[in-house]
Amino acid sequence: MSEQPLLEQLIEALQCQPGIGPRSAQRIAYQLLERDRDRGLKLARVIAQAMNDIGQCGSCRTFTEAELCRICASHSRDGSILCVVESPMDVASIDQAADYRGKYFVLMGHLSPIDGITPETLGLHILEQRLQRGEVSELIVATGTTMEGEATAHYLKEIAARADVRATRIAYGVPMGGELEYVDGSTLSHAISSRREY
Amino acid sequence: MSEQPLLEQLIEALQCQPGIGPRSAQRIAYQLLERDRDRGLKLARVIAQAMNDIGQCGSCRTFTEAELCRICASHSRDGSILCVVESPMDVASIDQAADYRGKYFVLMGHLSPIDGITPETLGLHILEQRLQRGEVSELIVATGTTMEGEATAHYLKEIAARADVRATRIAYGVPMGGELEYVDGSTLSHAISSRREY
Repeated sequence: MSEQPLLEQLIEALQCQPGIGPRSAQRIAYQLLERDRDRGLKLARVIAQAMNDIGQCGSCRTFTEAELCRICASHSRDGSILCVVESPMDVASIDQAADYRGKYFVLMGHLSPIDGITPETLGLHILEQRLQRGEVSELIVATGTTMEGEATAHYLKEIAARADVRATRIAYGVPMGGELEYVDGSTLSHAISSRREY
Repeated sequence: MSEQPLLEQLIEALQCQPGIGPRSAQRIAYQLLERDRDRGLKLARVIAQAMNDIGQCGSCRTFTEAELCRICASHSRDGSILCVVESPMDVASIDQAADYRGKYFVLMGHLSPIDGITPETLGLHILEQRLQRGEVSELIVATGTTMEGEATAHYLKEIAARADVRATRIAYGVPMGGELEYVDGSTLSHAISSRREY
């Protein structure tokens, strides 16, 4: 093993995460050592197991250690509505917040030819075959609003059209519960141009 | 194993730390799974190794996997000056910030009879024997300013007096680089009553 003291190795390893700087890592390390060694050991076990065993759902591509994720395996979810998101975290966000009872398809990224991320990398050929089979009646596009997200949304719209599947897109605009003065210009401009009858 | 999906177990286990709530834990879990599985495995290994192997220094009681910590084992540190702190984290803080070349003694807590933390729990009988042996010429008291920290400081002063060792205390007062208006009343009051010739 390395000559570096174990405590330093621990503090360094804990820093690998977003939002955990040197000070927090130090605090976590001491906390685990002083009070929570059993918890630390459990954390180590769960991390290792998750890294080794979690793969992707055979149907929607999200993270799961099973063949199918819970949502895809559920009989109470409506398989004719498919919401396409960029990451497994988006599935969790939508499922926690919204009253959505359809299923998902997770791209695990967005189109970015410059980084070698093609439609095939995102499983879009598999999605297209699925749309062609006619089991999906509505494809909800819920990609991000970055340039790559927009390009991906456009591509999704096209494969839906080819398969004669209705494509919809989640609403983008002013967030709920906020004052207009705190909303950035491009969101406001989008909100104005996408205004609806009231 | 549990019926709970591994991903949920991972997010839950990650939340055990101060400053890591459900959202951060989720973000860390997805980040590790999406991009950093090797790092995750390394993190798991280091945590487990640290929890199992890190014990206490035979001389100063701080955390180390060796018999003596680096500072106690070092020949370039002055063993005649001993700085007494409450936790291993204080050693790291002082050593990173101050130009201190003496050694440390780590209490791993402070006197709190109500919680069953007696002088023996803190190793104060060992410290007293060491002071009695005459190898220490100055005992720097650097406990916290809580009531328990003060009681501990007082106890330290007494054992130093019994062993005829000079006891000093780090300065408490207005933090450097700040405006007086942001300093709390009890700190200000202490700073006034502890004023020095200028």
